[in-house]
Amino acid sequence: MLTDAHANVLRLINQFGPLSRTELVGQLGISKASMSALAADLIRRGVLNEGEIVYGAGRPSVRLELAPNSAFFVGVSLATSPFTLTLTNLRGEVLSGADLPHGATPDAIVADIAATIDVLLDRHPQVFERVAGIGLAVPGVINAATGTCIRSTLLEWRDLPIGALVTKATGLPAFVENDANALALGEHLFGSLRGSDHGTVIAVGDGIGCGHIINGELHRGARDGAGEIAHATVEPGGLPCQCGKRGCLDTLASVRSIAAAARAQGLDGGLTALDAEANRGNRSAIDILHSAGAALGLAIAQIVQSLDPERIVVGMTDGPVAGLFARVVRQTVEANVMPDEHRRLDLTITRLENRAWANGAASIAAGRGFFRV
Amino acid sequence: MLTDAHANVLRLINQFGPLSRTELVGQLGISKASMSALAADLIRRGVLNEGEIVYGAGRPSVRLELAPNSAFFVGVSLATSPFTLTLTNLRGEVLSGADLPHGATPDAIVADIAATIDVLLDRHPQVFERVAGIGLAVPGVINAATGTCIRSTLLEWRDLPIGALVTKATGLPAFVENDANALALGEHLFGSLRGSDHGTVIAVGDGIGCGHIINGELHRGARDGAGEIAHATVEPGGLPCQCGKRGCLDTLASVRSIAAAARAQGLDGGLTALDAEANRGNRSAIDILHSAGAALGLAIAQIVQSLDPERIVVGMTDGPVAGLFARVVRQTVEANVMPDEHRRLDLTITRLENRAWANGAASIAAGRGFFRV
Repeated sequence: MLTDAHANVLRLINQFGPLSRTELVGQLGISKASMSALAADLIRRGVLNEGEIVYGAGRPSVRLELAPNSAFFVGVSLATSPFTLTLTNLRGEVLSGADLPHGATPDAIVADIAATIDVLLDRHPQVFERVAGIGLAVPGVINAATGTCIRSTLLEWRDLPIGALVTKATGLPAFVENDANALALGEHLFGSLRGSDHGTVIAVGDGIGCGHIINGELHRGARDGAGEIAHATVEPGGLPCQCGKRGCLDTLASVRSIAAAARAQGLDGGLTALDAEANRGNRSAIDILHSAGAALGLAIAQIVQSLDPERIVVGMTDGPVAGLFARVVRQTVEANVMPDEHRRLDLTITRLENRAWANGAASIAAGRGFFRV
Repeated sequence: MLTDAHANVLRLINQFGPLSRTELVGQLGISKASMSALAADLIRRGVLNEGEIVYGAGRPSVRLELAPNSAFFVGVSLATSPFTLTLTNLRGEVLSGADLPHGATPDAIVADIAATIDVLLDRHPQVFERVAGIGLAVPGVINAATGTCIRSTLLEWRDLPIGALVTKATGLPAFVENDANALALGEHLFGSLRGSDHGTVIAVGDGIGCGHIINGELHRGARDGAGEIAHATVEPGGLPCQCGKRGCLDTLASVRSIAAAARAQGLDGGLTALDAEANRGNRSAIDILHSAGAALGLAIAQIVQSLDPERIVVGMTDGPVAGLFARVVRQTVEANVMPDEHRRLDLTITRLENRAWANGAASIAAGRGFFRV
């Protein structure tokens, strides 16, 4: 089993790339002897390789690098339609993936997961002995410590110990996270938030999810309710929301809400088609995309003023990432953040594929089981 | 000098009250022998006392408690008018305080601080040798690590190493924080957020300040800009703000803005008088307090949805804490937070005296110098 000391070494090498023993000693503040022992142990276990030799002031030193295929992780997204499953390695690289049937009960879903893992492992026999864990991205409120889904409106679950069920069916350690938190943790470990202490990931899909990395860690909140910006009020007295309130961000800026507004005007609901209509000067299309982008931009600006993140990544499941919606988001953020040279926000708007949630889920297993983040 | 291991012991006893060596071993995960050595050392230094004897299953054990007057701290508020200075002990109890002249230059302010400390120490000779540090609460953007004020509009400072200047003049280690962060840290160490991992303090005075405790630590943000909710937009296209934007929370809910709105209607600007007018049914007074309370309540609801704190403390420098303004704040928070039994927010609205900022500043010195928070 890996100790915390092992995990500290692996985490640094994942974050900064290959490091020499001397560099690791400097970062970890441990003795050279302890570092040598840790490195020898991790090399013996096959998790680290000796790589490039660096010639500096003193003796040449060897950089230690992760052996990417020394461990593999399964990621399952129950937040997408269809559900998806991926197999990734220690660097977050994807080996294989599959769609899952949309089982009607937890038991059916768990059986599908186990069966699909068997199929993938048959296809990748070299992986078989080295699958270290499975991560699940679940749309809802999750108790990550116990692997329980406290409540998922979408899946109609309540107090379901989904992690334990998956472990029972697969024999693998299972780690459960809220879907947006899975994305945030994935970006932090392997993506655009790597090495960043303060970042926020916002997923604009059928719903709107948000995960914060604060002080280098996923922020779950006091009662696992952090990141629920979908139901933050952006327009007091605005449109009624499924949550019972009015004017939630979700009523204006989710892909589902944008599509509904478009169809109400006799327009195609897809964001790509709507953006094309707006480019042709269609007033209704422009209005809808403006309302959506302004609502999301306002919510982002409020996060910036309150939390001061270094970077915000907005992932869109539909539509052009440089279209009118994205332009209005950027413009609204700029107009609603205090003018201040000390707050140069890095705002990235990018495409989010269905597979991203499963990859995020796999990174939870890597992060919690291996890197101890 | 205290080591981190010493600080860990002191922090736990401050948080939970007197603890036995066995309880501390359980909390800290260190050996009994190490714990005994640490305790002996802290008792010898006079920082801990042996207190109550507890009789449990095994041998009776002695609880260790902080010796409250083994160390003292000076707190200076440059965020209030007048500036204030307090002398507190290791439990955050106030021994003495004084107002400071409002010096026109940093040099004059620093000289006033040094002179006032001399006067207080003459009055409390037993304290003289035991003043362990000085904390400064400064309205503006602060680099806490270097003790520099990056920018303060109110004080008209820019890149001023105020911490170093104060240390030079007083010989005391100086710790500098943003004024709202000082309040938050004070509440976390000695006040209503003691022991809470996730809490937010909001100060409603001439301006509006906000400090977040996240994961048991003060959250400063990526560029020391966290908590600037005063300039979060709550009313797009609303009133022009001094920051250059429109519809900032500050334009509606700060004591200064409320007073300005009241005077524009020929009403007394004080919150107490305005609340009395509202109670008599004065339409304008009701409208002004409603707008202010709704704006603050909305901002709080957005913090709840995004961060999921355990507790929010709103401190008011003026007006009744159970008046119309406070009622509207509560009502708006409830109406704009997602209905969810898992998010039972503890919202406290309380009075904030001028002295609170100086006490918060003193707690920074205690926290950073002593408890290492």
